[in-house]
Amino acid sequence: MVRFGGYRRGMDLLGRAASLDADDPLARFRDRFVPNSSLVSYLDGNSLGRPLRVTVDRLAEFVTDEWGGRLIRGWDESWMDAPLQVGDTLGRVLLGAAPGQIAIGDSTSVLLYKLIRAAVAARPGRTELVCDSDNFPTDRFVLQGVAAECGLRITWIPVDPAAGVTVDQVRSVVSEDTALVLFSHVAYRSGWLADAPAITSAAHAVGALVLWDLCHSVGSVPVSLDAWEVDLAVGCTYKYLNGGPGSPAFAYVRSPLQDTLTQPIWGWIGAQDPFEMGETYAPATGIRRFLSGTPSILALQPIIDMVSLIDEVGMPALRAKSVLLTEFAVEAAKELLPDVQIASPRAAAQRGSHITLAHPRFADVYNGLWDRDVIPDFRRPDNLRIGLSPLSTSFTELARGLVAVAEELRVVGGAD
Amino acid sequence: MVRFGGYRRGMDLLGRAASLDADDPLARFRDRFVPNSSLVSYLDGNSLGRPLRVTVDRLAEFVTDEWGGRLIRGWDESWMDAPLQVGDTLGRVLLGAAPGQIAIGDSTSVLLYKLIRAAVAARPGRTELVCDSDNFPTDRFVLQGVAAECGLRITWIPVDPAAGVTVDQVRSVVSEDTALVLFSHVAYRSGWLADAPAITSAAHAVGALVLWDLCHSVGSVPVSLDAWEVDLAVGCTYKYLNGGPGSPAFAYVRSPLQDTLTQPIWGWIGAQDPFEMGETYAPATGIRRFLSGTPSILALQPIIDMVSLIDEVGMPALRAKSVLLTEFAVEAAKELLPDVQIASPRAAAQRGSHITLAHPRFADVYNGLWDRDVIPDFRRPDNLRIGLSPLSTSFTELARGLVAVAEELRVVGGAD
Repeated sequence: MVRFGGYRRGMDLLGRAASLDADDPLARFRDRFVPNSSLVSYLDGNSLGRPLRVTVDRLAEFVTDEWGGRLIRGWDESWMDAPLQVGDTLGRVLLGAAPGQIAIGDSTSVLLYKLIRAAVAARPGRTELVCDSDNFPTDRFVLQGVAAECGLRITWIPVDPAAGVTVDQVRSVVSEDTALVLFSHVAYRSGWLADAPAITSAAHAVGALVLWDLCHSVGSVPVSLDAWEVDLAVGCTYKYLNGGPGSPAFAYVRSPLQDTLTQPIWGWIGAQDPFEMGETYAPATGIRRFLSGTPSILALQPIIDMVSLIDEVGMPALRAKSVLLTEFAVEAAKELLPDVQIASPRAAAQRGSHITLAHPRFADVYNGLWDRDVIPDFRRPDNLRIGLSPLSTSFTELARGLVAVAEELRVVGGAD
Repeated sequence: MVRFGGYRRGMDLLGRAASLDADDPLARFRDRFVPNSSLVSYLDGNSLGRPLRVTVDRLAEFVTDEWGGRLIRGWDESWMDAPLQVGDTLGRVLLGAAPGQIAIGDSTSVLLYKLIRAAVAARPGRTELVCDSDNFPTDRFVLQGVAAECGLRITWIPVDPAAGVTVDQVRSVVSEDTALVLFSHVAYRSGWLADAPAITSAAHAVGALVLWDLCHSVGSVPVSLDAWEVDLAVGCTYKYLNGGPGSPAFAYVRSPLQDTLTQPIWGWIGAQDPFEMGETYAPATGIRRFLSGTPSILALQPIIDMVSLIDEVGMPALRAKSVLLTEFAVEAAKELLPDVQIASPRAAAQRGSHITLAHPRFADVYNGLWDRDVIPDFRRPDNLRIGLSPLSTSFTELARGLVAVAEELRVVGGAD
């Protein structure tokens, strides 16, 4: 299988990468990102997307002209609506959601808590929550917390760590006891792309509500929340939406459900008339009732730029490049890293925009990689995630990164 | 009482204001803020503080060098600790809190929810929560939400809207049924400065926990959480800490209490080992357990600048100017606005850094004031709050603002 030495394999690969970059219709968009002259290979856009150049200017203008210029008037003039307006744009460009169903604010954890609690209250008498055993820790932990406080049991669907939950698995566990099912659309570990419409339908067949975590899918794979009849969704904006470290999360609540659900954190901005400041909390009608405290308007700014860029590019073109990138990553890993296991789905249609590699010595190499400005994401105990941001990652950068992984593994004696 | 016409009174006042500005040792710090050439009078720093010039540069550097330069490595290198490190600085400079007791993240509403729930769980069998009837809506609403879900009753202490809660009132209602008392240190409406140490002590005498909302006091009046033996506190950073619209909030939890309290939103970053990503949530030891989701590191940046500036100035000097400003505001309001009621405590020692005026026609004038770049804060039904940010508000600006209020009231026929 391995016919050439490591160097020769690396050179071949870089040549093919250069050719793929030359043919890439989205290559020109890489210039939109803040340059980083020392960077050799950034393969962790699935954890933190790179900033756009325009974001630097937008923040300066925001501080000087909007915050500094309009001062408190900004709330009346635009900020009050901004978390819902940016949510609407996100819905149109990325999520297949009609206006009035998405609010931006809080963190994914807090929004998960609010929506899980709201869903449980909307299914009184049902005693079960369903989740997969390999869902992201915050999803599992928040679910555990709600289960503990509401006296519910959680059914954990065991999944292959190199894949993810299937519709058959969901069908086999849900019942009329199930209040809510919670899954990630793209699994954080393997990159598995769940069959969201089929799973949603399976949950609905027993009267359960569905909550999708879109953290690893928004901005990387097409999403059609309305068409899939999804009830609830959350997602973060610092991965493929390039919002910056800890940027605010978003919540989607299907229109007909909104006024039937009450979330538990009764803050002023989610009240019916926030400026009436009356004696008793009454939730706003519509999506705003899912907000609690004042959302950060500063932290919202970078998201506006990235959603606008994706609108310019279009999701089909973005997904097409993402597929080429993950295919090239798999091919390159097989060639360069024969001792490494590919812990992601083999079919591009079944995965998001990252590829996970597994090797027992990865814990010993990732610090060395980071020091060389080759930046994948290490996940204990033995995973290296190769995240591919369609608008900022080049094929050459990907190839260079995998060559460096092979070299570092060789240094620690973990490869041929 | 009124001996001169409005014009003459206004001219006298502006002369006195110019003299106070000339004698103001903190006047030079006004240049640190982003200039606003059209601004006549900003009197709403108690709702949204003005940005510092240095914040524009800090954000550009953060995006380019930290986020764009260090990328995901930033979390390992500094961001993971930043919400607690900035919290420690806040504690040292402004809150009289030893390190390890303050975390920054979420919104005030979300932090209130988490701390109230944690407090209730720590006082099992106690059935009552105590609050004043004029506390800020989010405080009252969140408390109502927790009371509803935990089956507790709320005892509302009625307060004079031009003053606030007293220690005698608290003593007269708390009992061994009381789990928690929740008050604002400075009342959002009247500016009343509560006797926090005495009230804390009164609550402790019956075994209740105490939660102080510091939104309107942090950065405007001295606070000594450790010395006062406060259990819990929250506050926002967009008023006198100039963090920008919707900047993150902070939570204080007294050290000995931390590991006895569990908050309900079990997110990944509050777990014992956030990167272990284990099967079951176990809360971190220390203050980090009160965090849930990933805090915004971008939105944290402006706070760093303002806390640093206050450290340079010192709280005693800041409070001294605040007192002079509120005294001058009261004096000027009495002269210029004889038909207007002063709905704030008369003694400077009993108030924070804003003065509230009441007049039935204020609803008709505030839009006109905003249009002339005179910006106080209108609160339904009849309050105009005159917020005085010690480091950015000049006496001249205050005088100009009150002259404009008098002129606008005259236009609508609401003054002599």
